[in-house]
Amino acid sequence: MGSKRRLLLVSNSTLHGSGYLDHCEEQIKSFLGSQVKTVLFVPYALHDRDGYAKIARTKYESMGYKLDSIHEQPDPVAAVQAAEAVFIGGGNTFRLLKALYDNKIVSEIKKRVLEDGMPYIGSSAGTNVSTISISTTNDMPIVQPPTFQAIGLVPFNINPHFLDPDPNSTHQGETRETRIKQYHEEADTPPVLGLREGGILHVEGDTATLKGTTKARLFLKGKEPTEHDQGTDFSFLLDPKNY
Amino acid sequence: MGSKRRLLLVSNSTLHGSGYLDHCEEQIKSFLGSQVKTVLFVPYALHDRDGYAKIARTKYESMGYKLDSIHEQPDPVAAVQAAEAVFIGGGNTFRLLKALYDNKIVSEIKKRVLEDGMPYIGSSAGTNVSTISISTTNDMPIVQPPTFQAIGLVPFNINPHFLDPDPNSTHQGETRETRIKQYHEEADTPPVLGLREGGILHVEGDTATLKGTTKARLFLKGKEPTEHDQGTDFSFLLDPKNY
Repeated sequence: MGSKRRLLLVSNSTLHGSGYLDHCEEQIKSFLGSQVKTVLFVPYALHDRDGYAKIARTKYESMGYKLDSIHEQPDPVAAVQAAEAVFIGGGNTFRLLKALYDNKIVSEIKKRVLEDGMPYIGSSAGTNVSTISISTTNDMPIVQPPTFQAIGLVPFNINPHFLDPDPNSTHQGETRETRIKQYHEEADTPPVLGLREGGILHVEGDTATLKGTTKARLFLKGKEPTEHDQGTDFSFLLDPKNY
Repeated sequence: MGSKRRLLLVSNSTLHGSGYLDHCEEQIKSFLGSQVKTVLFVPYALHDRDGYAKIARTKYESMGYKLDSIHEQPDPVAAVQAAEAVFIGGGNTFRLLKALYDNKIVSEIKKRVLEDGMPYIGSSAGTNVSTISISTTNDMPIVQPPTFQAIGLVPFNINPHFLDPDPNSTHQGETRETRIKQYHEEADTPPVLGLREGGILHVEGDTATLKGTTKARLFLKGKEPTEHDQGTDFSFLLDPKNY
């Protein structure tokens, strides 16, 4: 029997020229369907949790879902245990992962998603923490989580907001591609899927499909990166035996 | 009696349109003077340590100094203990800090700089690790150091390669300024000096001066960032009682 996992991993919550989650609204509605009534929101990646929950609530209500923010719940673990679906929003990945550990919900989310099939929506930092580790986040290490290991709903890494080099830039900081290649210089490093803004990885059980509006760039240790169109079947990434 | 500390903290090793360390060559020669004969190089931030040492050696020899790379020494701690001056080059800050701890030279470098007045030159990641922590690095967390606390030669943070927002960008990833402001949302966070490419912070004892070719941007917790010309006296940053 295959995995029950259901994931909608979004590169970014706001696409240039549109509002919060507008670009993935149809994907979210189709993913959650009509059976889910209430989504549990995790606002830990931003400092202003109240303000963040307000923005997320407005959007989810407009899509026909009730939204509970975990920071308003008395017991975060119980909130995850009772959730119909979870949405983890973007912000700072280190702050988010530390708060997930501080609130002891890393293993609980993993259990609910992998064993119960609770739908998981992640955006940006919320996508980073769904993967094997946060080692390919773009964020500053403003706080120190106990480990870089993340929830581990998939066995590889994602780089959200993946950015191609600007050929006109005179800036000497490393490009995103250089940074990911440096990651692959280290031992035992899994693939990294570079999700450009507008990109979405949709996982249903043991099937992973690229959705959204942009191509993705895949980095495998020791190989040249490759470009992939929307609709690409990335299921092989779900099994570490394949790399 | 004031501190013996002597630091030359460079934003970046290569400036657009010139060669390795060319833009700070005169500053390095003036900083090291003629008394120093041999510089101890720390190449830990890059994977190819041999190749990196070769590049650094060529440049330092052209300036009239011998260069020993610590990765070619049998005992890194003894190498630091015997060094006349140290140069820590750029690359990945997490990889660098982890290797400094793995080789047990963090406290030894601190002791040599603060107590013996051993001159310290840092570039990019080598500048990050000289400060209180690596919490304002731009690099990916490709490996996990035991702590984000760094050598602590100064009590504040530096953001090297500081980059102004591109007004024409449609990319929705956080700007550098947003990331630094997120750092200051956390408790007990010291100032962050944004050193643009071409910028150098020169510290002699209890005096800190901005040198190089670009203005710097200073971020203090709870305040609007401020712009500072070359020649600015940043000595107040050296005493945490001032913030």
